[in-house]
Amino acid sequence: MSIERIQPGNWNSRAVIHEGIAYLSGIVADDKSAGMKGQTADVLTKIDAILGGVGSDKNRILSAVVYVSDQALKDQMNEAWMEWMDPAHPPARACVGVELTKDVLVEIMVTAAC
Amino acid sequence: MSIERIQPGNWNSRAVIHEGIAYLSGIVADDKSAGMKGQTADVLTKIDAILGGVGSDKNRILSAVVYVSDQALKDQMNEAWMEWMDPAHPPARACVGVELTKDVLVEIMVTAAC
Amino acid sequence: MSIERIQPGNWNSRAVIHEGIAYLSGIVADDKSAGMKGQTADVLTKIDAILGGVGSDKNRILSAVVYVSDQALKDQMNEAWMEWMDPAHPPARACVGVELTKDVLVEIMVTAAC
Repeated sequence: MSIERIQPGNWNSRAVIHEGIAYLSGIVADDKSAGMKGQTADVLTKIDAILGGVGSDKNRILSAVVYVSDQALKDQMNEAWMEWMDPAHPPARACVGVELTKDVLVEIMVTAAC
Repeated sequence: MSIERIQPGNWNSRAVIHEGIAYLSGIVADDKSAGMKGQTADVLTKIDAILGGVGSDKNRILSAVVYVSDQALKDQMNEAWMEWMDPAHPPARACVGVELTKDVLVEIMVTAAC
Repeated sequence: MSIERIQPGNWNSRAVIHEGIAYLSGIVADDKSAGMKGQTADVLTKIDAILGGVGSDKNRILSAVVYVSDQALKDQMNEAWMEWMDPAHPPARACVGVELTKDVLVEIMVTAAC
């Protein structure tokens, strides 16, 4: 039984791979000055890169939890989500409002087949 | 490696099936005028139907996250949960209070074997 | 297809095991009078015990969601987390602020290989 860790850091790995499933950490945007749509697009680009590095892609995401700082901004998150998502391959998803760290508007955690 | 999607929509699929595991989206009640117990019962009925459609059932739920809009209403959620759950087959579960969309009191996301 | 349940209770099982994966419930501290660091250390000790009981351990955690009652206390949570975590085996992780039940400062839900 092997467990592979991608970009292990102080608290977590960027992703953990086990038995053909990639478990990603919650990903946040690099540019915290961006608005909700911009932060979401940045997060999704980062998720694409992580998935690409482990032989997966957005069309093999099984499940996603989208944490937003404010449900009033959910439509802006969904704009970026819909521009990114392949309509033929939507994952299971929940979107809930939580307290995130300072200036973070969205954090997304996905599980994908690879 | 096959991935099956149930009721794919604009943002997500109702459920995604991969390697014998069903990953469901966060499910909310249809009738948002119902109280916490009523909304929870509705959500659980909907989860039963989704699981039934993929050859699973509530006794094969592995893990559930119950998102509630107000922890003060948790007991009412649990009333509906206990009337529904088979005491011989409780899943792993967490229940946390988050901001949900307008008038939604509870949203439940489960993973099940099928 | 077998599903094993550890410490099944009224609402949930402490853990559910299926196909070599342990799905744990959200775990909270026993001593609610402790501060964030103390509660986190208690939670992690309890997770160690549950994982040990199913032939797993903290180095085989795949994914963790850390729910905190207040992001201002996140650094204190991380102090306990870093004293506990093996730097060679960090899991995927997200940490989000939510409403927990009274006096609970942290609740952690993990998935592990076993």
